[in-house]
Amino acid sequence: MNSANELVGAQLTQVEETLLNIPEMHPSNLRNAVKTIVASGGKRLRPQISLLVAGMFGKQDLRAAIDVASAVEMLHTATLVHDDLIDGSLVRRGAATLNAAWTPAATVLTGDFLFAFAAGLASRANSVRVMSIFSETLGVIVGGELRQQFTNWARRRTREDYTERIYAKTASMFVLAATAAGVVAEASEAQITSLNQYARNLGLAFQIMDDVLDFTGEQATVGKPVGSDLRRGLITLPTIFYIEANPDDPLLPCALEGNCSGETYAQLVKRIRESTAIKIAIAEAGTLANEAKRHLANFPDSPYRDALGAIADFTVARTT
Amino acid sequence: MNSANELVGAQLTQVEETLLNIPEMHPSNLRNAVKTIVASGGKRLRPQISLLVAGMFGKQDLRAAIDVASAVEMLHTATLVHDDLIDGSLVRRGAATLNAAWTPAATVLTGDFLFAFAAGLASRANSVRVMSIFSETLGVIVGGELRQQFTNWARRRTREDYTERIYAKTASMFVLAATAAGVVAEASEAQITSLNQYARNLGLAFQIMDDVLDFTGEQATVGKPVGSDLRRGLITLPTIFYIEANPDDPLLPCALEGNCSGETYAQLVKRIRESTAIKIAIAEAGTLANEAKRHLANFPDSPYRDALGAIADFTVARTT
Repeated sequence: MNSANELVGAQLTQVEETLLNIPEMHPSNLRNAVKTIVASGGKRLRPQISLLVAGMFGKQDLRAAIDVASAVEMLHTATLVHDDLIDGSLVRRGAATLNAAWTPAATVLTGDFLFAFAAGLASRANSVRVMSIFSETLGVIVGGELRQQFTNWARRRTREDYTERIYAKTASMFVLAATAAGVVAEASEAQITSLNQYARNLGLAFQIMDDVLDFTGEQATVGKPVGSDLRRGLITLPTIFYIEANPDDPLLPCALEGNCSGETYAQLVKRIRESTAIKIAIAEAGTLANEAKRHLANFPDSPYRDALGAIADFTVARTT
Repeated sequence: MNSANELVGAQLTQVEETLLNIPEMHPSNLRNAVKTIVASGGKRLRPQISLLVAGMFGKQDLRAAIDVASAVEMLHTATLVHDDLIDGSLVRRGAATLNAAWTPAATVLTGDFLFAFAAGLASRANSVRVMSIFSETLGVIVGGELRQQFTNWARRRTREDYTERIYAKTASMFVLAATAAGVVAEASEAQITSLNQYARNLGLAFQIMDDVLDFTGEQATVGKPVGSDLRRGLITLPTIFYIEANPDDPLLPCALEGNCSGETYAQLVKRIRESTAIKIAIAEAGTLANEAKRHLANFPDSPYRDALGAIADFTVARTT
């Protein structure tokens, strides 16, 4: 089976060039800082999805597909700049965040600047529908973060809230990547619906695995302390399953209020790590990944379709 | 001569309804706070410009023109939300700013949410070119603010820096309002160039008069202390002209470094108020307003064209 890099590697290089071609900014060392952040951007999973979707229609070389792939990744980057400011995060992907070195004012404005850049890239795809999906997705992402700022603890430990939260935070951007690529590749409405379902399920599986790895990963690989979500008051699926199975664990109340001692957090993280909650969460991600693949059956057999399926498999199998 | 309100009052009402129809947000009292801010939005000058431009082509009732007018005003509002956060302003247009009552995180995210709403309104106009102008304008506005954050004092007192600054801050949005309306009204390329020039000159004149009124207005009418720009270190055209005529005034050095005593500021503001700098700045605004009107000559005579000319006249004549 061909990997995404073999199939659309050349196009991913074009995406990379597009992303690094940030418009002129003053001061220029801020532009350099932004470039460093963009360059440290990991696997480029979202652009891969866009390009593979276009590839299913033989349109992987279409400039509009490359524009969509670039716009999605830049929108993702812009939201991370504001996220890191809001969370006070100092490191991301091994590099210093903007807010670690610049003023809050400069960080807010730089995020805005990258929104403008992302919107400009999206408009290059020359499709009003892409712009409409694009702005709608930004609204979902930001609306979800806003809601999270004000959601009480009772609601935060429900699966309903969790799914809503990770849809807004992660899956919505996967849906944008897949459906906007479908639009420029002239997919039918039925196909766009299938792309939406593929990406929605894949995105949910991806975030669940991220949340599992926060418990099971090694600090050296994940790049942050084990259980860091719980420690900063973020209730994710493993914790939700753990609570369902152990509602009376005396360590839980302070965790749900986000004010345990470091030692108590360490103990609780260990209990969750060793509980069945992790396995159930991985199984849930597996179910979603299979559901994602099921929606690919609506497209003709092709190496691009296989690679999209492989992304779903990889999402559940990954250990970092 | 008909005023804008007589000509496009019905359409402005539709803009108002569109603006207040903010997408669902949680928490709902944050949405109410946003509505209050949107509702306190002053004269709606930018939508007036869009609608009058459309009116010159008999297209004032076109839904896309109303969408453009609404998108421009919402973009303006979104940038103000982030501006007020960055400046730490607590009051705008007589209402509490968002950052006065909400956390910085909520204020950043609400600004982002309004960007998304504005982009969604713009995409409704169903024109890729509108989206492209829209995202470009956001880049100019934010890029200008970023530059301002890092510009040294030596440069800030040059006319070149001032013009660049007020183009980015104010005139660019007027250009968006006029040219995007021209695009949806199917103006020719030559006409779009004329609209660009009209709006550019009008926007510059408008901001110069704003900066003059900061010196000459009464606190009760302007709603902020006289000379507030200078007091917070903002060098505007009256100050630049004053420096050119009085380079050796001993009160200037601390003002240029932004660290005079309150008493010194009061004295310097009085000197600038009573100097010829004010008159020269008003004359400059008058020249720009006339230049704006000159570009209207490229359109057939109509009450809409006259109203656009009247906006230019009013901009220079206004006292609040």
